Amino acid sequence: MNKEFHDRKTPKPEIEARISALKQALAEREVDLAIIVQNADLFYFTGTIQRGYLLVPQKGDPLFAVTGNIDRVREESSLEAIEAISSLKDLGELCSQMFGSSRPGTLGLEFDVLPVSFFNRISALFPSSRPVDISSAIKKIRMIKSPYEIEKIKVSATILPEALSHLPEILKPGMTEVGLQSEIIRIARRRSHFGAHRVRGFNQESYYGHVLAGPRGAVPSMVNSPTGGLGSTPAFGYGAGHWPIEVNSPVLIDLCFGIDGYLSDQTRTAVVGKLSPSLVQAYGKILSLKREIEKLLRPGAICEEVYFQVFGKAEELGLAENFMGFGQRRARFVGHGIGLEMDEWPVIGRGFKVTLAPGMVLALEPKAVFPGLGAIGLEDNYVITETGCENITPLDESIIEL
Amino acid sequence: MNKEFHDRKTPKPEIEARISALKQALAEREVDLAIIVQNADLFYFTGTIQRGYLLVPQKGDPLFAVTGNIDRVREESSLEAIEAISSLKDLGELCSQMFGSSRPGTLGLEFDVLPVSFFNRISALFPSSRPVDISSAIKKIRMIKSPYEIEKIKVSATILPEALSHLPEILKPGMTEVGLQSEIIRIARRRSHFGAHRVRGFNQESYYGHVLAGPRGAVPSMVNSPTGGLGSTPAFGYGAGHWPIEVNSPVLIDLCFGIDGYLSDQTRTAVVGKLSPSLVQAYGKILSLKREIEKLLRPGAICEEVYFQVFGKAEELGLAENFMGFGQRRARFVGHGIGLEMDEWPVIGRGFKVTLAPGMVLALEPKAVFPGLGAIGLEDNYVITETGCENITPLDESIIEL
Repeated sequence: MNKEFHDRKTPKPEIEARISALKQALAEREVDLAIIVQNADLFYFTGTIQRGYLLVPQKGDPLFAVTGNIDRVREESSLEAIEAISSLKDLGELCSQMFGSSRPGTLGLEFDVLPVSFFNRISALFPSSRPVDISSAIKKIRMIKSPYEIEKIKVSATILPEALSHLPEILKPGMTEVGLQSEIIRIARRRSHFGAHRVRGFNQESYYGHVLAGPRGAVPSMVNSPTGGLGSTPAFGYGAGHWPIEVNSPVLIDLCFGIDGYLSDQTRTAVVGKLSPSLVQAYGKILSLKREIEKLLRPGAICEEVYFQVFGKAEELGLAENFMGFGQRRARFVGHGIGLEMDEWPVIGRGFKVTLAPGMVLALEPKAVFPGLGAIGLEDNYVITETGCENITPLDESIIEL
Repeated sequence: MNKEFHDRKTPKPEIEARISALKQALAEREVDLAIIVQNADLFYFTGTIQRGYLLVPQKGDPLFAVTGNIDRVREESSLEAIEAISSLKDLGELCSQMFGSSRPGTLGLEFDVLPVSFFNRISALFPSSRPVDISSAIKKIRMIKSPYEIEKIKVSATILPEALSHLPEILKPGMTEVGLQSEIIRIARRRSHFGAHRVRGFNQESYYGHVLAGPRGAVPSMVNSPTGGLGSTPAFGYGAGHWPIEVNSPVLIDLCFGIDGYLSDQTRTAVVGKLSPSLVQAYGKILSLKREIEKLLRPGAICEEVYFQVFGKAEELGLAENFMGFGQRRARFVGHGIGLEMDEWPVIGRGFKVTLAPGMVLALEPKAVFPGLGAIGLEDNYVITETGCENITPLDESIIEL
């Protein structure tokens, strides 16, 4: 295989540290054996998404039971114990070898993503084991990024900024939301974007993000985000549609690109012409909220408290009804973790009591929504450091006027 | 909202016929109440993907319990009973109103797509009901398309052909797989492609399909398809990568576009220059397999038998080792249903004993894979008619030489 491809292999010490963290989590939760199946988790713990089941016992060495192409797995994964199996059914036998007659008493599975029928098939292979949900444990481990991962996300965070530098050549009035989105995606993809946009949440679909022009920026949808959009059909009723971009009207560009699986998630507001003075004023308020957020993002801060403080400040600024959505249709968060998936932990939102810690990587997205006019705002990506936070989005924060 | 958007609303008689088919399936399976949640199913039975739970009792009228934007739902769905609820928890109460003190004895859920934790939350609301898997019932209903749906898929099947007519302008040697894919997607998206590519299978990720050049056409991956590809990183180890397209080497273009949620899935083989005589000869064999398939696709035929006959013919032609993959790494099918999802029923493959019937829509994809050289083949979409099949792919079947 290609050298350039395999230079992208996850280094062995990374995989070892991740497995070790998982084993510790299993010990804390008294789980005897974890079986990892979902693509993003599988990539995190093995370095490949080629088909297989990663068995991680609380005590002893992990074993990657591969149903797919074992040659690719051996090249892509730095795990040592890789064994071909012909189907899921062989897991029972493998497990007997691992545990002898004792069998695992508890079996850790990804309850938040495994479909019921698949879960039932796995559970049936371990009739004497009790299935236990380890999805929170996995999300907590993945929440803290290693320097290797942070470096990936930093590169990933340069893709949209580069694509947006071409905006003066590509954005023309009369162009549709979809037209603009396609041009930006084409640039991002040809440059280096790896191609996927993984989302963990059920029914949250995978696509590259929003480009919403004018009033459509204020149309709510099923997407768990401050903005939704109309889309071009009820079958896909969100995101960019075949609607024209008008002069003097805000264009919210909120896109997610990445390299080697690691995503960035950034937003800028553009306009062909000039925004109205009231929207410019609102944008100024959003910028002061951004500065407020940057002050609050530091180790030791509690996610929910950061959210409440930012929301309180938005109320003081007179944005109470417009911040992160409009009226009753508002996102109850102002930021979220990013990494191999778009919707990682922690969430800077209501009900999320996690303490910020170094190595977390976040997308913070103060936005304001005005029915009939559209959405404005921005979204930068941050790494929590030992003393505060580092903004890793190399983009000017102003409205992009063309 | 926009007239053009709402002209795309699923007509009321469509929704009524679908719900009626579901109620009949519930009666046959003695299921008292179905709760539909997953996006594609929700769109099929309600006309919208805005957030909610569709309750369909075996006896009585359906009720759409909406947690999302009720105004959008009322505009997009032609269902009559639409009610706002504040969260999943309200389903229990709604259900009491529907069933009185009797409560549903059996509860039909989409076991093949509902994550375990979500399933557990729903089940907990109905402690006296037994959950039953209705995913096969739903897939069987969706397998037979109405004339309205067939019309949508026919339009959808014109998108890739139109994009490919621009191939002479866009495909240049030295261009990467990703570069070519991005150009084609841009044309498709700007024209009318609605933007998503829904796949039902767990861990089968959503993207637009393959563009695989030269030897990479023969690299197997985790994708359940005759071709996989290397991709550009182990994090996304399939599909197009940042590898150059070389002269005289096959370029397999296998992409999925659609309108209003309905997808097409088509493939052509292109080449800058000329393919080697051996690949041209193999392509000729693939074309004769295509004709064999077209003879076999008719009401009354059994899917698995069609597959075995086509596979037998491939063996006769000397393609035994190369048909639908190479050696042990072969897809065990030659076609699949398409519609709102890419992986619908029926599958023309091993173990699939369904009888073909009018209204089924299929993607048939005879392909041959040659390690070190690449993949060749084509994929057309067909509607099963009263007497045979109709090819709805308006594309010449030859190799596209540039």
